[in-house]
Amino acid sequence: YAEFQDVNHMVIFGFGFFLMVLRRYGFSSTGFNFLIIVLGVQCSVLVEDLLVFFYLEANEGILKSIAKASISMTAVAISTGAVLGKSNLVQLIVMTIVELVVFCVSRWINRRYLEVGDHLSLMHVHLFGAYFGLAVTSCFPEPSPKLDKNRSTPKSDLFSMLGSVFLWVFWPSFNSLLAQSRRKAVLNTYFALAVSAVTAFMLSALTSKDGKFRLTHIHSAALAGGVTVSFTAEMISHPWIAMILGLLGSAITILGSHCLQRCLNPPLKIHDTSGVHFTFGLPAVLGALAQVVLLVIREWTNSSSLGYLVLLHVGAFCQTISLALITGFITGFILNTRPLKIIPVSKYFEDQFYWEVSLNVTL
Amino acid sequence: YAEFQDVNHMVIFGFGFFLMVLRRYGFSSTGFNFLIIVLGVQCSVLVEDLLVFFYLEANEGILKSIAKASISMTAVAISTGAVLGKSNLVQLIVMTIVELVVFCVSRWINRRYLEVGDHLSLMHVHLFGAYFGLAVTSCFPEPSPKLDKNRSTPKSDLFSMLGSVFLWVFWPSFNSLLAQSRRKAVLNTYFALAVSAVTAFMLSALTSKDGKFRLTHIHSAALAGGVTVSFTAEMISHPWIAMILGLLGSAITILGSHCLQRCLNPPLKIHDTSGVHFTFGLPAVLGALAQVVLLVIREWTNSSSLGYLVLLHVGAFCQTISLALITGFITGFILNTRPLKIIPVSKYFEDQFYWEVSLNVTL
Amino acid sequence: YAEFQDVNHMVIFGFGFFLMVLRRYGFSSTGFNFLIIVLGVQCSVLVEDLLVFFYLEANEGILKSIAKASISMTAVAISTGAVLGKSNLVQLIVMTIVELVVFCVSRWINRRYLEVGDHLSLMHVHLFGAYFGLAVTSCFPEPSPKLDKNRSTPKSDLFSMLGSVFLWVFWPSFNSLLAQSRRKAVLNTYFALAVSAVTAFMLSALTSKDGKFRLTHIHSAALAGGVTVSFTAEMISHPWIAMILGLLGSAITILGSHCLQRCLNPPLKIHDTSGVHFTFGLPAVLGALAQVVLLVIREWTNSSSLGYLVLLHVGAFCQTISLALITGFITGFILNTRPLKIIPVSKYFEDQFYWEVSLNVTL
Repeated sequence: YAEFQDVNHMVIFGFGFFLMVLRRYGFSSTGFNFLIIVLGVQCSVLVEDLLVFFYLEANEGILKSIAKASISMTAVAISTGAVLGKSNLVQLIVMTIVELVVFCVSRWINRRYLEVGDHLSLMHVHLFGAYFGLAVTSCFPEPSPKLDKNRSTPKSDLFSMLGSVFLWVFWPSFNSLLAQSRRKAVLNTYFALAVSAVTAFMLSALTSKDGKFRLTHIHSAALAGGVTVSFTAEMISHPWIAMILGLLGSAITILGSHCLQRCLNPPLKIHDTSGVHFTFGLPAVLGALAQVVLLVIREWTNSSSLGYLVLLHVGAFCQTISLALITGFITGFILNTRPLKIIPVSKYFEDQFYWEVSLNVTL
Repeated sequence: YAEFQDVNHMVIFGFGFFLMVLRRYGFSSTGFNFLIIVLGVQCSVLVEDLLVFFYLEANEGILKSIAKASISMTAVAISTGAVLGKSNLVQLIVMTIVELVVFCVSRWINRRYLEVGDHLSLMHVHLFGAYFGLAVTSCFPEPSPKLDKNRSTPKSDLFSMLGSVFLWVFWPSFNSLLAQSRRKAVLNTYFALAVSAVTAFMLSALTSKDGKFRLTHIHSAALAGGVTVSFTAEMISHPWIAMILGLLGSAITILGSHCLQRCLNPPLKIHDTSGVHFTFGLPAVLGALAQVVLLVIREWTNSSSLGYLVLLHVGAFCQTISLALITGFITGFILNTRPLKIIPVSKYFEDQFYWEVSLNVTL
Repeated sequence: YAEFQDVNHMVIFGFGFFLMVLRRYGFSSTGFNFLIIVLGVQCSVLVEDLLVFFYLEANEGILKSIAKASISMTAVAISTGAVLGKSNLVQLIVMTIVELVVFCVSRWINRRYLEVGDHLSLMHVHLFGAYFGLAVTSCFPEPSPKLDKNRSTPKSDLFSMLGSVFLWVFWPSFNSLLAQSRRKAVLNTYFALAVSAVTAFMLSALTSKDGKFRLTHIHSAALAGGVTVSFTAEMISHPWIAMILGLLGSAITILGSHCLQRCLNPPLKIHDTSGVHFTFGLPAVLGALAQVVLLVIREWTNSSSLGYLVLLHVGAFCQTISLALITGFITGFILNTRPLKIIPVSKYFEDQFYWEVSLNVTL
């Protein structure tokens, strides 16, 4: 029950407030995230109940299945980060349901044909969520670059910091929920997170002009370590390996945030509101790579099965990412068809479009 | 110890920030709530210790008695919501002590004469708190309707959302603290809360003009499910019953909020600052009704004792609500007598009246 | 694992938001606190690992050693409170490392030569942190008294209240982490905290003009009870002793805050940004005194060893406080030498000096 609580808190609070970076979009960020997660968990549990009912899966206790559903919802919360402020609630709900079903299918393929364990297949959630979200957001029209509504204020940044610290604190519980040896997973995740937080400050000061910190770097990169070790948390036997992964994850996030925003996003016309590509996507790719490398090192002597194992892992990675991208594009295309698309570009990032807000306030 | 922590967090954080809806009343909302709960828990524990000392009750471990005292304090926190911003601290403290004693007496009557179990008698806390608070607030002079100090700002709404989500997340712990089968109580509460959150969004958009959401609806109605199943959380054997109760609870809250504010409150001259009547009162009435219906269904075959059991439950409900209303009126009357009443209507909803606030601030 | 989580949450959230009292220093307060704690915990664990490697200490499980490291970091978090807004990040990191090493040495002396138990030696953390911080801050140049950047705004006060309530809620876990009888330690801490919160409100109204509350009083004094009983939480056999200690702790904090700010700080030219002297220093002194008094009462009959025991406890207290003051002065002196000192007095309490902040914001 305690682990269930931890994951539940983390997903609802953490992502709710983590996404609250936009100055006029606080209500929608928390409110919609809350709604989507609650809705998604119910759908997941319902689908799983049906599968159990038709004897397709074994029953494993409903608290555990809620916790697993909450973890699956992380994919949706990450994808939401990419389209934040650009999609209305109906679009978000459609996206939630499509993404949940596709992620479920992707996990089933991984488990069935690629011999990936239950825990590991669930940890593909960051990879799937980030690239699904990117594919969806690339189908949305870009907001005008002169617009300043998608900036943050100091107050919204503080709320976002609150959410980010929440995620940071609960990440070890998240990574260890289904692990065989929970203690090891918790420790490795903790060390990776700790190193990535320290690296985040260092690199943020080094890469910005006049050596100032940027709070969005800290948000993203402090979590990168947790994402990077999510695949390998229970495999790693020495904490220093987790620490190196945390350092690399943090570095790839901050360097990625500079490169992507300058080189990749403008030509591809992707507008990634809260930077899920470098916060969750790149560290997850790094983590998958690290997993293969660690596997090669561990199984070096046993050369007969090595090639097969590597193939399986690379296959699972490629299957997840390509399924995410393809279905993401299709979903994004569907979301921008007539019946669903009712939000004009000029109304992006506005709470007032959805909520009764009393803005005529002098403080 | 973990459950004690959960309830403790929920009452202090959750209600503290849940009540922070008024734009100029943030300090008092959290501060006074904190003081009152801490004071109330101490009084409860002290009284219980005295009863144990005189051999009137069995000793059951002090951690458990603190947790029970925290749950009892929920009644006071709810009543505080009704008079929020209109009463000074001395009035609140007097109200706290009177309400605690009366709630204790009400529980004792229920347990002793109406054969209500310990867990169930504690779950009358919402019902008692809401109607006591309403009775008290009806004795206070109404604030001028032109006043805009009792509105909320986007920032205060976000803090209130924080508190509301806190309450939402910890509600399963709250409902299951004394339950016989904790697992069942947790699950049913979770499903009721999840459905009521989804319903809240739907109905909020449907009932407001131009389909916008109202954040206060979301606050109130997301919690309504938890209140509704509080009586029946451990009796319900199928989750879908809990889900239907959550849906009904959410619906009654949102419809109630429209009806009450237009039809009931103006003629009765009740000013219910944070809407405790529809947030906690109506769902609790619905929950008590649902309990009787579920009892009738379950005991249908055993017709000999059915009438007696129904009578006991209806009796407990009527006793609680009437004792709350009567003593509430008396308390409200006492609070508005000379020695206690020092706050004029024009000073309602002002932090500056109680706190040294530096308001000459340009940000 | 649950206790590890509790302490981890408390240190990162609690102190992060507790320190957020300055109007333009929110990013730095949370951000730097987060960095320093993460860095400090890693250093501690690394040092402890080295000691284990060289067979100087027994291995006791890495989760426990992280939890102990988090508690040690409380000393640094407290010291940071004293120099908040006046030191740059390099100075803070140097201070962190020096303070950790010195505190480790101080604990080792206490354990080795003064027969202080492991739990008790860790509880000197408030005493050490407060006086180390005071000694460091006395070496910094004073900010101009006309400056209003070191005031708080209502919003920053609310965030600080959030952190303060977090600390309050998790304090029992903190005090009981290494205790022999956890249950007793939790209860005594809870009662002390409860009484000190109530006393805080009373005394705050009594000591300020026109009977208004001051939020900083509530922040500080509500925690004073927990600090006061930290030494004695598991020794106290009757809750009322803990309650009296909580009352005294709260009283000394509020009276101390008035006296120190008028009488002691101006002549000594100490500028204690968030008042760690009266929040943590004075209650810890009181707690150490109470410990000796309780010891004398308990060992009264056994007069042969009484003198020796009292001597040991007084010795541990004097050793801790003098080592803190001496090394604090030396550290403060080093921090203000050329290579480290790059922040002019006029840039005190400014986030913009370290962070890329978008302040040209109209809400």
